This record gives sequence, C-alpha cells and structure tokens, in this order.
Amino acid sequence: MTPHTSDAVRQAARESALTDEVVHSFATSTDPRLRVVMASLVRHLHAFIRDVRLTQEEWDASIAFLTRAGDITDAHRQEFILLSDVLGASMMTVAVNAPARSTATESTVFGPFFVEDAPLITSGDDISAGMPGRPCHVRGSVRSTAGEVLAGARVEVWAADDDGFYDVQYEGSELAGRAHLFTDEEGKYDYWTVQPAAYPIPHDGPVGDLLTAAGRSPMRPAHIHFMVSHPGYETLITHIFVAGDEWLDSDAVFGVKESLIVPFTEHEPGHGPRGRVIEETWSSTTFDIVLAPAEPGPDA
Amino acid sequence: MTPHTSDAVRQAARESALTDEVVHSFATSTDPRLRVVMASLVRHLHAFIRDVRLTQEEWDASIAFLTRAGDITDAHRQEFILLSDVLGASMMTVAVNAPARSTATESTVFGPFFVEDAPLITSGDDISAGMPGRPCHVRGSVRSTAGEVLAGARVEVWAADDDGFYDVQYEGSELAGRAHLFTDEEGKYDYWTVQPAAYPIPHDGPVGDLLTAAGRSPMRPAHIHFMVSHPGYETLITHIFVAGDEWLDSDAVFGVKESLIVPFTEHEPGHGPRGRVIEETWSSTTFDIVLAPAEPGPDA
Repeated sequence: MTPHTSDAVRQAARESALTDEVVHSFATSTDPRLRVVMASLVRHLHAFIRDVRLTQEEWDASIAFLTRAGDITDAHRQEFILLSDVLGASMMTVAVNAPARSTATESTVFGPFFVEDAPLITSGDDISAGMPGRPCHVRGSVRSTAGEVLAGARVEVWAADDDGFYDVQYEGSELAGRAHLFTDEEGKYDYWTVQPAAYPIPHDGPVGDLLTAAGRSPMRPAHIHFMVSHPGYETLITHIFVAGDEWLDSDAVFGVKESLIVPFTEHEPGHGPRGRVIEETWSSTTFDIVLAPAEPGPDA
Repeated sequence: MTPHTSDAVRQAARESALTDEVVHSFATSTDPRLRVVMASLVRHLHAFIRDVRLTQEEWDASIAFLTRAGDITDAHRQEFILLSDVLGASMMTVAVNAPARSTATESTVFGPFFVEDAPLITSGDDISAGMPGRPCHVRGSVRSTAGEVLAGARVEVWAADDDGFYDVQYEGSELAGRAHLFTDEEGKYDYWTVQPAAYPIPHDGPVGDLLTAAGRSPMRPAHIHFMVSHPGYETLITHIFVAGDEWLDSDAVFGVKESLIVPFTEHEPGHGPRGRVIEETWSSTTFDIVLAPAEPGPDA
C-alpha cells in the first residue's frame, strides 16, 4: 500500500524535524569539536535508520548485538575493536589520517591484541618465549621522510604464533611474541621471534556471527604488528604482511596495503644473525621504516 | 597546508575504494535484507568518519566509550538503549515504523526499564507495592482504528515512583509499579499505582558523560510506559506524559508527542474508584488506546 504523496511528505518532514531536534540538542556544548562530531554522527545514524526503514525487531537485534559485544569484552578480548575492524571503520580512520602525498611508511589497523607495558628488550634478543613456530629474525631501520637516521626510536612489536594465536589467547598469563626495543645509533633494530601464521579473528562472539551471516571469512593473512614512535614524529601503527600468504586479498579487516607486503626468506639450518646456530629451517625479513614529522596539533 | 588538488583527488579515491570494498564484502550474504542493511550502515559509518576526519585519538575514545557502556550494562542497567535514546536513534526507529497517516495511538521509545514477566493483575488492583508517591488511578479502553472494542487486549505498564526511580533501581529485587492485565468485555482496563515523577536517566556512565560534555540535561518528564497488544493488531509501545511537567519540552530521549500528554486530575481525600477510601490527596487519569491492524509481514 503506497501512502498518498501528502502523507509521504508529512512523514519525511516529521523524520527530518526529529534529526534537527537531536542535532540542536548538541549545539549547547562548549566543545566545538564535540558539536561537529555529534552533529555528523546523528545525521548519518538517522539517515541510516531512514534509508533502510529499520524495523523495531532490527533495533532490538542491534541492542542485543552490542550487549553481547559488551558481555564478551574483557581484559583479553576486545569485541568493539573487532566490530570496527570488520566494518572497515578502523581502516577508514587510518585512511583519513594518512595523507596520500606522504612518503612515510603506510599505516594499518591497530587491532585488538595490543598489550600495554610489553617487555623492553635489547637488539638481538629472542621474544618467542617458547611459542610454536619457525625461528624468524626481523631487522630494519627507522628513518625520517627527510632521510635522517632516527636513533632511539621506540619499536613495539606483537604477533601471533605458528598456530595463529597471540599470547593473550593462551591459557596462562605469560607474555610471548611481543616486546619493545629502541633503535641504535645507526637507527637499526633487530630481534628473533617465530614466523607468524594466518589466523581467524576471534569469531565465537557476535562479530563472528555477523561474518557468518554475511558469508565472510574471519581469516587474516600472516602479519607482525609494529608501533613506532620518536619525539617530533607521527607515531606509526602498522603491520608487515608475509608475502605469498593466501589471505592477502581477503583480509577480514581490510588491513592489507601493497607496500606492507614483505618477503620472508627461508634459510637452511646453520649459522644465523647475532651468532645464533639454528638446527632447523629458519626465516628472516627486513622492514625499513620511515616516519613523517609530527603535524602541529590543534593546541599548538 | 592544503594538499595539491591531485593529492586530494587521490585521497578521496582511496577512501571511496575502501568503502566499496567493505560494502562488497557483505554482497556474498544469502540474506538480502542483511546485504541492504549492512551496505547502508557501512556507507553512513564511513561517510561520518570521512566528514569529520575522525582522529585516531577520537577512534580510541569511541572504543573506550563502547567498552565502558558494555562494562556498566547488566540485568538492571542497559547503557546501549540509553545511548540509542539520547542520540534520537530509538525515536527515529519509532518514527519510520509509525506511518503519518495512521489514526492509531502514537508510539514512543521503549526505554531501558522494561522487565519480562511482570505480574498479571486483575482490573482495579494496586501495583504500587509501597512505592513512594501519591495514589493514582489509571483507566482507559482499547479499541481498533475501525472503532471496534478490543476485549482481552494485553496492557503492560511500568513507571517510576515519586522519587523518579523504577523498581529495578531499588536495592532489593522486589517488583513494583509494573504489571500486565487484560481488557474486559467492554475493552476497558484500570489499576491503581502512584503518580510518576520526572527523573534523570541513569547518568553515572558514559552516556551521562556525553550529556554533560554536550551541556544537555538528563531529565525526562514524568510518564507511564504502556505496551499494548492484541492478536491481529500492531503492538503499541508508548507512554503517557503528565500534562504540565516542566521537562516536556526538553526530554533527554526526544520521546514526547503532543497526543501523549494527558491531564492527571488531583482529588481531595475521600472515596475513589473501585470503592477505595483514600486518606490523602490522590490523582486520576484516563488513557484511551487505539490499535492499528497488523500489516502483513515479509513472510506473509
């Protein structure tokens, strides 16, 4: 049954008036940025509800979804980041903050597996702490977009093991596969770990149900997370991806960028870097990082 | 620093491509409605992030906000409904589901204080169970938009007390101020309760912080919740608001509609309805309800 045109016009006017009323309610804020953000959020949220003519049952399901996401989230599980990730919202935030003109290393998603206060190590240390997987040596340098060597840059790394699990997904509370270290006077860093494997994002919660309903895979291609910072430079949050991984074209969180795919070279057992003798096949990779100078913030 | 036009074009193209990629990821769903809903959600969510150029810090704050909302939500507290309410999303959902042409009683927000399995009462019973407040008699009828008397309609009611608290906000676990009953052969219902007071929505969580940052009041005008159902008719979720309440023009959840504001008449101590003798000032109100016939669902 199609309503008369006048009814449709009246309905649209009623809906628009509600949006205006809600936007106006945020106009009293003394925080100009909050006014801008909330006005846009309300307009897009309302437009979404109007566009799809959201039913009351779908609204109920949305509340139940968020409630389940809250229930499953704890110190070791972050369902809201997963949700942002699979909706591409995390990657869009990265995109709007990474100008296309920059020659700095590209960013990608932060993900839900970062842990504050990961151990400080010295260059050459092994952070695998018994994780299953092929020994892997990671090395590289940190420079500025102007080509300067950045000594003392903080390099934070975290990655999954050969079974696709992060330490925080283990039964116990031990830390493994994560650490931070500082570049030396030549701007260099290196450490030993295990080569990471592709893995599914945690999919036993509402985000997993959404992926299933959408016919989407929860798999992420193998990668190592990096967060690199130095005073006076933009902090870089990124990964390196293992070249050749079968999931590079269908990352569940849309994080892959061509420039971040790097080869991991396979080596026969024998002598490796830092004088290490390895009795099994091992691998190595190099990731040279370029940081952009910090832009002045809104308070500068 | 304004980027060159070619950089701006490249940036916009990159952002649009990401949105298209995420929308496309939902195209594999076998559920056509899910495809439509997720495509619109992703497009609006991404457009919001692009419009405001959301910073990484603001993304962090958004995740922290949702995490806090999850933490505070439990069987008696529903922060996600509060969030939907203060953003006008609940009321917009009501609006798109309530055609402007209908002569049925208008709907409003469901709110976070509904409890399943509230007690069944008989017409004339008192549901106040010792709640503080002035005795109040509520009565009315349930009819169809065609004017038919609807006998056996289920009328579910819930409301706050004179201090502005619902039973679920009390220390103990007793139920009060909520019940369901059925209309008699003339389509009539009536019960005793206490006259509800205006109250702030729970504002000791992230939603309260948002209202504070926005300079918005958490107050809702005094009201009684109704959910009315009958086989063959659309279930009505609504309130009645107490005429004269000072917050009618600034409801924190945008729920007020002119047609739902009803007078509560004050009476001197003495004989009241249902043979009750009241030794204090009491009040009464009448709410006649009109239900629309059920529309055939998508499966019909």
